[in-house]
Parts: sequence; C-alpha cells; structure tokens
Amino acid sequence: SRSINLAVIPGDGIGQEVVAEGLKVLSAVLPQDVKLETKDYDFGARRYHATGETLTDADLDQLKRHDAILLGAIGDPSVPSGVLERGFLLKLRFAFDHHVNLRPSKLLPGVATPLAGQPEIDFVVVREGTEGPYTGNGGTIRKGTEHEVATEVSVNTAFGVERVVRDAFARAQARPRKKLTLVHKNNVLTFAGHLWTNVFNKVAEEYPEVTTDYIHVDAATIYLVTDPGRFDVIVTDNLFGDIITDLAAAVSGGIGVAASGNINPSGTYPSMFEPVHGSAPDIAGQGKADPSATVLSVALLLRHLGHDAEAARIEDAVSADLAERGELPARTTSEIGDALAARVAG
Amino acid sequence: SRSINLAVIPGDGIGQEVVAEGLKVLSAVLPQDVKLETKDYDFGARRYHATGETLTDADLDQLKRHDAILLGAIGDPSVPSGVLERGFLLKLRFAFDHHVNLRPSKLLPGVATPLAGQPEIDFVVVREGTEGPYTGNGGTIRKGTEHEVATEVSVNTAFGVERVVRDAFARAQARPRKKLTLVHKNNVLTFAGHLWTNVFNKVAEEYPEVTTDYIHVDAATIYLVTDPGRFDVIVTDNLFGDIITDLAAAVSGGIGVAASGNINPSGTYPSMFEPVHGSAPDIAGQGKADPSATVLSVALLLRHLGHDAEAARIEDAVSADLAERGELPARTTSEIGDALAARVAG
Ligand SMILES: CC(C)[C@H](C(=O)O)[C@@H](O)C(=O)O
Ligand SMILES: CC(C)[C@H](C(=O)O)[C@@H](O)C(=O)O
Repeated sequence: SRSINLAVIPGDGIGQEVVAEGLKVLSAVLPQDVKLETKDYDFGARRYHATGETLTDADLDQLKRHDAILLGAIGDPSVPSGVLERGFLLKLRFAFDHHVNLRPSKLLPGVATPLAGQPEIDFVVVREGTEGPYTGNGGTIRKGTEHEVATEVSVNTAFGVERVVRDAFARAQARPRKKLTLVHKNNVLTFAGHLWTNVFNKVAEEYPEVTTDYIHVDAATIYLVTDPGRFDVIVTDNLFGDIITDLAAAVSGGIGVAASGNINPSGTYPSMFEPVHGSAPDIAGQGKADPSATVLSVALLLRHLGHDAEAARIEDAVSADLAERGELPARTTSEIGDALAARVAG
Repeated sequence: SRSINLAVIPGDGIGQEVVAEGLKVLSAVLPQDVKLETKDYDFGARRYHATGETLTDADLDQLKRHDAILLGAIGDPSVPSGVLERGFLLKLRFAFDHHVNLRPSKLLPGVATPLAGQPEIDFVVVREGTEGPYTGNGGTIRKGTEHEVATEVSVNTAFGVERVVRDAFARAQARPRKKLTLVHKNNVLTFAGHLWTNVFNKVAEEYPEVTTDYIHVDAATIYLVTDPGRFDVIVTDNLFGDIITDLAAAVSGGIGVAASGNINPSGTYPSMFEPVHGSAPDIAGQGKADPSATVLSVALLLRHLGHDAEAARIEDAVSADLAERGELPARTTSEIGDALAARVAG
C-alpha cells in the first residue's frame, strides 16, 4: 500500500532509544510516494505507575486502527514480575491473535558468536503465539500455605496448531533448502505432543517437496550449539519457542541483533514487530544500546506489509554495518542508526 | 554399608554395552570387604514387544528391595514415542519418588566443547523429578478431529517444591562458591512461578551464606553459552531442568560424559543412576559408545550410598582418562572401561 499508519510503542528502558533509530531508518528507506504516519503510545512502567493501567480496551481500540505496531521494549524492575508481561505484552499478542511469532536467526559475516569455528547459521523459528502454556489457564489453591497447589495448563487446539504449522510449511516451501523441523516433547507431553505430531504429519502430505523431521526440545538445544546449520525452518509451541529462540539469538550474534514479528497473517488485527531483547534498564539512557535488532524488526514489518525491496535494503545495510564493525571505534545508538539510515538511503 | 545390593537395568541400544563397563569399574573400585551383589532386569523394548509390559507392580516390588539401581538406557525406534518414557522411565521416577534429579556439569581439562575459548564450567542442576508438566495430568477431547483440544497440566505443590529447593540449598551451602540460582519463567507462568519464587525466598532465609539469584529459563539458555561460569547450583522445575541439562551437557563435553542421579533422599525407595544420553540405536552393538557417562553415574551412586572416597577415585580416573584422550587412537567401549578399571584399582 502507498501509506503506512504505524503505532509506535517505545516502552521502557532502552526501548525509547532503539525505536528512535528504527524510525529513522524506516523514514530513510521508504520511497517518497509512501506516506508514513506514526502515532506514539505511552505504554509500560511509567503509565502503569501513574494510572495502574497496562493495556485497556480503549487502547486496543486505538491500536487496532493502525497497519502495524513497532515496539521497543516493555519491562522495568520497579514493576512486579508478570504484571507488564501478562498485562501488556501477552495481552496484546492474544487480543490481536498474533499466532505466528516469527524469529529469524542468521549469523552474519563478521559477527561474533560464542560457538567455536564460526558455523553457518540461517534458520527461522515459527513459534506459536496464542496457545500452549501461555494462555494463563491454571490457578492456585491454599496460596502461601504449606499445602499450596499451583497449576499451569497448556492448551493446544487442532485449529491453533494447524494454522501455525501451515504457516511454517509455506515458509519452508519458499526457502531454498525447504526443510521443516517440528520441535516438541511428544514423548512426555503425550496429549499435546500427539496433537502437534499428527497435525504436522497431516499437513506435510500437502508439501511433498518439504523435508521434515522431528526433534525433542531438549535435544534441539544440543543441536543449536553443536550443529545449528542443520536447521532451516523450525515450528514449535509457545514456550519451547520462547526458550529456543533466546538460545538461537545467543548463538547467532546475540540478542543485540535478534528481530521478531508477532504476526496475524489474516490481517484482521495489526501485527507487532519488536526486538527480542528486553528493556535492559542497566544501560538505558546511555546511548549504549545496539539498535540493529529494532532496525531488523522494521525490515520484518516492511516485508509483512509487502515492501519487500525496502526490507531487503535494510537487511543488507545491517549486514554491511555489522561486517565493518570490528574496524570501527564503538559508536552510540544514534550513530549506528545514522549509519544505517545513510546506507539504506544511498 | 559393607554391602551393595544393586539392581541393574541395561535396557536398550548402547545401554547393554555401557552398563557392562560401569559394573567393571564399580567392581574394580570397591574395597575387598564391600560385598557387591547385582541382579539384572530385562526392561525395555525387547520385553515390551514380547509381553506388552513396561514396568509392573511386581517389578516395582522386586526393584524396591535393592540399595540402588543402575540403568543404561531405555528407548527404541520400534516402540511408539511415549510408551517406554511414560511406561517405564517416568513411572519409575514417580513410583520411587525420585524428586531430586541431580545433573552435574563440569568441563574437564582436555575435553572439547562447542563453545569458543574453553570456559570454566562447574555447576550442578537440581531438577525437580516428580511434579511440573511431567505428571501426565491433562487430556484430549475430540481426538483426531479439527476440534481437538489437548491439555497438559503442570502440577506444583508447596510440599514438592520446598523439598527440592531445600536439597538444592544444602548442596549450594556445601560447595565453595555457595551460590544458588532459581530458573523458572515466573513472568509468564505466574501461578507456578510465584509458588517457586516464594518457597525459594523463604528457604533462602535459613541459608544466609548462600548467594541467590533468579533467571528466566529463556535467559538461562543464553548464559549457558555466553557465561556458563556464572552458575554454581541451579534449582528448577522438571521440564525446564530437562531442557537446560541437555544444553548444559552439550557445552560441558557432550552427553558422552553427562551423568545423572534420580534420587530419593529419604531412602524410602532406592535411587536410580543413569547416563543422560539415550539408547543411541544407530551405534548400538558396535563398541563405539563412550561408557564415561555411565561410569560417572556409578560415582554418583557410590556417593549417594556413602562411599565418597571411591566416588572420588572414579571421577579422578575419568578426568585423567579424558585429559589423555587426545593423544590416544580411538578405543572401543570396553577398552575405555578397562582403562578406567585399571586406574581406579591402581
Ligand atoms: C517477556 C516475555 C513475556 C516474552 C515471552 O515469554 O514471550 C519474552 O521472553 C519473549 O520471548 O518475547
Ligand atoms: C526420555 C525422557 C523421558 C527423559 C526426560 O524427559 O526426563 C530424558 O529426556 C531425560 O532427561 O532423562
């Protein structure tokens, strides 16, 4: 489309700083005839402390009108664990049915990895975003006593599993290697595991060109450090996806460059794009944060909206910038943003 | 005690081969006056195919009479996923209340790691073994239809959490660094997370010398590859423990050397010791399996039974053997067992 109406949520900690650079690069990459409108939303710790609100129905009503959402980071040590996570981040994913949580991992040339031997890494994790142990089902009885019982219920539906598995097959089909790995723990979580495995095998029949395999989540963590090159596309449940994408980010250059999209493929609600790193309050406000993960999230956003050429230009710019980084003195957040904006405009 | 009455379960695949070496080293290390009695049990794929049984009440009655259990590996591709896991391995852990699943990770000198820079790694994971998502609670409705719903219920009790947290604090207190990390996902799994966090903080008050911290499971996987030296003792839930101990094994020398104990500290039922690796059917019967993980599991077994000096002799022998391995031509499973037996006897 010839205009982008973007909701911007800078959020907490380094969120403000990195989002500013994401927008700088976005403005620089867009052709003259694409009109960019942005509106800032003040969600996060500050608003929570001031009003007790995290994300109201009225907020969702506003956000819903945008084409997409760019988020920096939400979270602050001053807010009890879980309040902003459940009250904002997860609430938004569930309200806007962000069932495809897309997390690419690519080790770019010149980027440091904790793994020996600089292996080739280029895969994408399709993490389910609206089911599994993230639904908030469960509860507590006899809280605080020696007889307390707390449960967490992982909810998995054929509907929910099939749509994300289909999305992953389509992505695998579109990639040169055409390989899809299901990650689960179907030997222990047999109820959910059988559902995932059966749906996966059923959809596989429609994609004869896609090579498939299955790996338990525990073994997957081993492969991610001993043989990450074996992965092309991974599809997995919400919690396993949370865990393995942090590990994937760590081995492929760190969370400083890990981008993600919380996608509603049907377009009923806007999708949200955010760096995988959190608010990093320890370095906030110092111009030390690397905006690359946010800038790469902007690329995912552009691709989602059909601006493929611009997305590719951003990815190339980040790749080139990272490759030269070893030779440069350390730069501030906005200096890196300036450099990337110059590259995509040039 | 002056006698050990051991149940031996070689099991499937390489289980047979590695257990033979474990027993060889055990016989070699024990002083003359300690009487070792062993009885073999034929659990696993063969028995399942022949009888349909995995572990009967009569079996449990037999096993219960032993001082401890040594297990090789259970699992074979000819058996549907979940049958032996739930029907044997987990059934035994639950029946014998193996609530402390102990998994040490130590990167020994000369041992290869996928991590760059040969970091120092020496920590132990205390994984809860009888609760969490492993209880088998949950179910399926409308199975096989497009309206299927499958649930998995993680069950956490103050009783179950407190006993394993106490065990972990005691272990941390006994180690030089006296540091204990709780790994959970309390920002999302808030019911279980609050129980774990509250119990952890309460027990911490009784251990003023133990330094404590908390890390989300996703972030823990990052630290395990970027800064594994930060960990001393980790306590965590059954599923998180399953996942991070495979990763921990991978970074600290691989599952060829990862030992584990399924411990019932009260002694009401015998504890079980097993290598973390599985049955590895692809290399079974070829004398290629490394028996070190089993031999180190025998050391954990001996320490559990109070034979600390013998346990230390085994650990030193494995350490010395691994350190020299780079210079030696490849050896068979039994040659490595012979070498270790000679070292502990010598
Ligand atoms: C902050 C938290 C709710 C979130 C998650 O668990 O999904 C984060 O870890 C992520 O991966 O986006
Ligand atoms: C085989 C399986 C049941 C088991 C587990 O999940 O506990 C294994 O992965 C382990 O870690 O011992």
